Amino acid sequence: MATKTNPGNFFEDFQLGQEIVHAVPRTVTAGDVALYIGLTGSRFALHASEAFARAIGYGKAPVDDILVFHIVFGRTVADISLNAIANLGYAQCRFGAPVYAGDTLSAVSEIIGLKENSNRATGIVYLRSTGFKQDGTRVLEYVRWVMVRKRDQAAPAPGDHVPRLPVAVEPSTLGDACPPINAAAYDFTLAGSPHRFADYVAGERLDHIDGMTVEEAEHQIATRLYQNTARVHFNQFAQGQERSGRRLIYGGHVISIARALSFNGLANAFHIAGINGGRHVAPLFAGSTVFAWSEVLDKTELPGRSDVGALRLRTVATKDRPCTDFPDRTGDDYDPAVILDLDYWVLMPR
Amino acid sequence: MATKTNPGNFFEDFQLGQEIVHAVPRTVTAGDVALYIGLTGSRFALHASEAFARAIGYGKAPVDDILVFHIVFGRTVADISLNAIANLGYAQCRFGAPVYAGDTLSAVSEIIGLKENSNRATGIVYLRSTGFKQDGTRVLEYVRWVMVRKRDQAAPAPGDHVPRLPVAVEPSTLGDACPPINAAAYDFTLAGSPHRFADYVAGERLDHIDGMTVEEAEHQIATRLYQNTARVHFNQFAQGQERSGRRLIYGGHVISIARALSFNGLANAFHIAGINGGRHVAPLFAGSTVFAWSEVLDKTELPGRSDVGALRLRTVATKDRPCTDFPDRTGDDYDPAVILDLDYWVLMPR
Amino acid sequence: MATKTNPGNFFEDFQLGQEIVHAVPRTVTAGDVALYIGLTGSRFALHASEAFARAIGYGKAPVDDILVFHIVFGRTVADISLNAIANLGYAQCRFGAPVYAGDTLSAVSEIIGLKENSNRATGIVYLRSTGFKQDGTRVLEYVRWVMVRKRDQAAPAPGDHVPRLPVAVEPSTLGDACPPINAAAYDFTLAGSPHRFADYVAGERLDHIDGMTVEEAEHQIATRLYQNTARVHFNQFAQGQERSGRRLIYGGHVISIARALSFNGLANAFHIAGINGGRHVAPLFAGSTVFAWSEVLDKTELPGRSDVGALRLRTVATKDRPCTDFPDRTGDDYDPAVILDLDYWVLMPR
Repeated sequence: MATKTNPGNFFEDFQLGQEIVHAVPRTVTAGDVALYIGLTGSRFALHASEAFARAIGYGKAPVDDILVFHIVFGRTVADISLNAIANLGYAQCRFGAPVYAGDTLSAVSEIIGLKENSNRATGIVYLRSTGFKQDGTRVLEYVRWVMVRKRDQAAPAPGDHVPRLPVAVEPSTLGDACPPINAAAYDFTLAGSPHRFADYVAGERLDHIDGMTVEEAEHQIATRLYQNTARVHFNQFAQGQERSGRRLIYGGHVISIARALSFNGLANAFHIAGINGGRHVAPLFAGSTVFAWSEVLDKTELPGRSDVGALRLRTVATKDRPCTDFPDRTGDDYDPAVILDLDYWVLMPR
Repeated sequence: MATKTNPGNFFEDFQLGQEIVHAVPRTVTAGDVALYIGLTGSRFALHASEAFARAIGYGKAPVDDILVFHIVFGRTVADISLNAIANLGYAQCRFGAPVYAGDTLSAVSEIIGLKENSNRATGIVYLRSTGFKQDGTRVLEYVRWVMVRKRDQAAPAPGDHVPRLPVAVEPSTLGDACPPINAAAYDFTLAGSPHRFADYVAGERLDHIDGMTVEEAEHQIATRLYQNTARVHFNQFAQGQERSGRRLIYGGHVISIARALSFNGLANAFHIAGINGGRHVAPLFAGSTVFAWSEVLDKTELPGRSDVGALRLRTVATKDRPCTDFPDRTGDDYDPAVILDLDYWVLMPR
Repeated sequence: MATKTNPGNFFEDFQLGQEIVHAVPRTVTAGDVALYIGLTGSRFALHASEAFARAIGYGKAPVDDILVFHIVFGRTVADISLNAIANLGYAQCRFGAPVYAGDTLSAVSEIIGLKENSNRATGIVYLRSTGFKQDGTRVLEYVRWVMVRKRDQAAPAPGDHVPRLPVAVEPSTLGDACPPINAAAYDFTLAGSPHRFADYVAGERLDHIDGMTVEEAEHQIATRLYQNTARVHFNQFAQGQERSGRRLIYGGHVISIARALSFNGLANAFHIAGINGGRHVAPLFAGSTVFAWSEVLDKTELPGRSDVGALRLRTVATKDRPCTDFPDRTGDDYDPAVILDLDYWVLMPR
């Protein structure tokens, strides 16, 4: 009898154009929202306060964009990245509709690229994942690429196609998950900062100052909350036999912490409308302290909207190194403390 | 003045036939459900998704059976097992009605057996505990037996009766907590596995593959969530003076993790309808990694039900040892890595 | 361009009479309530059970008083105590209305005292903070004083005024957050103790027996849940360079644990109506075990209320030392194990 347990897909199991409907649908609740605050320290008023959200034009407080991302991402792991070695990058991520407590999220992915590595032991899988609500509303789509082991090194490569991906999300396509904002009702004091869209300029850099130490229990609880089952995060017995000897912290948890730290300087960046690209430059292990800084890459108005504008930000996170002097990359080389380089669009009141 | 603090009952404080109404009623909420997912990684679609639950015939997503068990169990600790040395076993556990977020659970126990140990320092208390909703609906009943210290070794034994307990729950009595399932609406893709009742055969064994490392903070948060106050789980100062030197992880947390791991192979075992017996073979301490495997002991149809069938499973959990080769017992001797041996009935769509 | 990040206020930034509207409003949910139970082990029936709360006269289960305190306190940190060295004390704390899941809390503070220390490097800020619901209802007010660094030692002191604070909250002003209690419906068995107001006498002392070990992940999750961003709690990189070398546990977490432990002996002290004074005698670091004992300082009826009476309690918490012999202070010297000395009013059914 064939086993009924899922060993996960290997590189040669994927096909170009393949569509995968992921298990398990997940209802997001006030419990998830509270845990997300407890695990990350997020303080953005839109997500923390029903009263604030209603005042500016949302029906109620929407779920944090990054929490939505993690839950949709979590759906995809059992099919895509159980045998992954590394999550290499993200692109073309756009949010399609606000998610509220009570919504049930599910996900579908399409394989859009496959490229065997020259060692023939691994390959890169490119996929576009889409998250939906119970009523079919698209809440999120994004491309990611991930290095996956082959089961059998001798197996033929299942394809050889690297998709061409734009370097950024087109700003005119942003804002679907943000209803019209009542700017007059937007209380900058309650939001935590007087700085609005007009106050930021391209090239400006912000040190987010604070540091956040991550514990094993914290990243495990967070990653399980998203029902992300990738083995490297939970199994110390197996990880103890790997080179690092440690459980690897889910890269998404680093994104959450960097976003939470960015409140100090970007408190009115109330909505992440899209992610242009992201790279986990180095792994994070428990016990380290995460710091972050951001740079304004660009700013733009959105067609037909006078309520909000879009800032293109780059947020860099480091471990065990404050960001007073903005540790960065030079060419392809990063400062050794850098662990995350994230390029994304936020919306801010004008 | 007599103290107003509760030192817990000792063996000689119990009487055969005694009925104990436990404090404190506990309303189960979406917060508990989220924390349970975060602490265990459970992925069963019925509990994770309102949409899935409604589609198959539940009014809304029921609370995980094992979470219900832990909350009812937690009520009993202050009266029964504050001075317990070890929780020895469970039997005759049946679920009586689905529990939903918003329900308030309370518990009553009857002492059904008492047996002093030959050392006269301890005795075994057998009790049947029953959990109720706010409206009196019985949601759970089970028998457990627990070794409790005597306050005074010279005190006479309060009784000498060992109840006769059937080795298994009668299958015809299962299913009260499972409404009629709309099998046509049961989406096996969304549930995470194509395998239904008909696909399993008695004798079949499944390695659940994944491992889950447990941290001190995790088991403490879980056990406090159930308001289980047994001292061995929380007090490192006192435990540091015991032989193990460590806080003992609540055995129920091991059951939760084993159940969550069993998703990989048993994703459609959506409901635990009864527990025939359970034994905590060895203690678990933080830092260890839990693995699990299961065996199908039996399978049966349920009288009058064509929607679901019952599998009798035995799930064995180990610490720091993968279950590829199904570590087991030989006679009364267990493989030294085994920590849990649980015999229970699950319902699956036919 | 001036930085947009908030370095926090320093001593010379405050002015006597200054009013500060704090960010960020925070909706309290069932998720927060569950996490609070999971992190503290609180068991008071009023907060744990909707059914119990409704039976005795609340519309629904109110949020734990100390959780309300922490959330209001958390609002104030970014403006007041980001650069604090130590939270020195509390006084004149009164609860004004019950808070329910779904309420959104915000906070305002007034600077009521300023006193430079003789070293001229630091000063003490006295403030009265008030927490409000979305509809303007006052839910809490309290005074605290905190030692804050100066940015520039040469800067002139911003004031020199120490407010006169009564040593206790006037009992006749207590009870606003407690509706009339239906004493006949108050079930002492379900609440966990037979002891009511009449059973306690001034001078009585209670050892709460149990100990609770605190993990880094636990206090970090708790403190982030309250969106309290004080740096000393989260940043091991920075703390590793301080004398203690450790992250300091938020003193409020110690209050929560002491209150939860006090259930054993004070289960019917269902509501904290006011806090007369509180002092964090020594810091707590992760890995230590907290114990607590209480003394009844006073008891009084409340004007016009025959349903409940007020006990004035002093709860002392220790680390790594059981409280069997009530470790205390002698004059100004505390037993070296003492970490908290809290003087407060609770309401109990008569």
